[in-house]
Amino acid sequence: MSILKAMQWRYATKKFDAIRRLDAEAIDDLLQTVNLAPTSFGLQPFRVFNIVDPTLRAQLAAATVNAAQVASASHLLVLAAASRLERAAVAGFIDRAAQVRGVERSSLAAREAQIAGVVDGMDGAGRLSWAQRQAYLALGVLVAAAAQSGIDACPMEGFDAAAVDRILDLEQQGYRATVFALLGHRAADDPFSGLAKVRKPLDQLVATL
Amino acid sequence: MSILKAMQWRYATKKFDAIRRLDAEAIDDLLQTVNLAPTSFGLQPFRVFNIVDPTLRAQLAAATVNAAQVASASHLLVLAAASRLERAAVAGFIDRAAQVRGVERSSLAAREAQIAGVVDGMDGAGRLSWAQRQAYLALGVLVAAAAQSGIDACPMEGFDAAAVDRILDLEQQGYRATVFALLGHRAADDPFSGLAKVRKPLDQLVATL
Repeated sequence: MSILKAMQWRYATKKFDAIRRLDAEAIDDLLQTVNLAPTSFGLQPFRVFNIVDPTLRAQLAAATVNAAQVASASHLLVLAAASRLERAAVAGFIDRAAQVRGVERSSLAAREAQIAGVVDGMDGAGRLSWAQRQAYLALGVLVAAAAQSGIDACPMEGFDAAAVDRILDLEQQGYRATVFALLGHRAADDPFSGLAKVRKPLDQLVATL
Repeated sequence: MSILKAMQWRYATKKFDAIRRLDAEAIDDLLQTVNLAPTSFGLQPFRVFNIVDPTLRAQLAAATVNAAQVASASHLLVLAAASRLERAAVAGFIDRAAQVRGVERSSLAAREAQIAGVVDGMDGAGRLSWAQRQAYLALGVLVAAAAQSGIDACPMEGFDAAAVDRILDLEQQGYRATVFALLGHRAADDPFSGLAKVRKPLDQLVATL
């Protein structure tokens, strides 16, 4: 299936089949794919919480606008952006780059200084927004990858972020709950599965100049 | 090719083959795919500028940190988030939804009020951030779709947004330059094409709880 057809097939699933679960290989492939999403300078300033504990899932579901939708999903991912992006994160990236590419760390000093300069040039709110945008890019990759793999997905913004931060103790860890992704397979009786997609005509989305 | 393999194949292309262009069907398929990216409430609060005019491309390239990279790309897309998301945008979405789904507009009044309430609840900066996140989600879909289609892509944040806004007269149109996407095919001699990907170990990106 072409990716265009896959994206036509997908929709924001509101009711998942509560019996049909994603197998371990499918979810692992999706998470590995998300790990390949490009991010600014490669910093990957977010974390993905894959919530499998039933009690935790129930608590998180209760913090959303649609607990039944969350409960029906096979998997619940919470994407959390870095709330305190600091030099240590840049240093960690440079450590990894030196190791993966088999070069001396000192050969990457100019790159480290460049990235640190950009990070230092943003205030706290700016860094968080930037990290959140990276998480959304990764969410886009996830949505496309799921569709291409015949897996239903629904991004979800309708939750109490402060409550989710508390439930997952995110502030302490330097993260902020940013967006949820529900994964699974559509229920046969999801009333939303039959609805025509509402999108702008292409010439209203795209301007060719 | 699986989407995971496709994402392993792609990389942030720094030098495109300046001769090999994407054909019209390939770029149209990608843009249609981007139009299918999910957005909050379906509002699609961004516009995609597909820059084909050589003079405009040169002006935009000069506003980036890597004009040669931009010049080498087959296609340059500028994703611009809505800077003044207002009730008219919500009304426009409801108009489309009524038309596409063949229902009375009045039957969507509660949905319109709900969306308008969320939009009204954000200040100007919050709305812009929100719109920018949606644009990044669409960028993620674009990157994945390009990879799956064997097309190279490089997101680019390194540009003077104010200059791009001026060049494209975006403020007047209610948009803000948010991120670029370069598309094409990698040059055989791009030194970056041979580098190993630097990513977090999966267990540092993902926490299973």
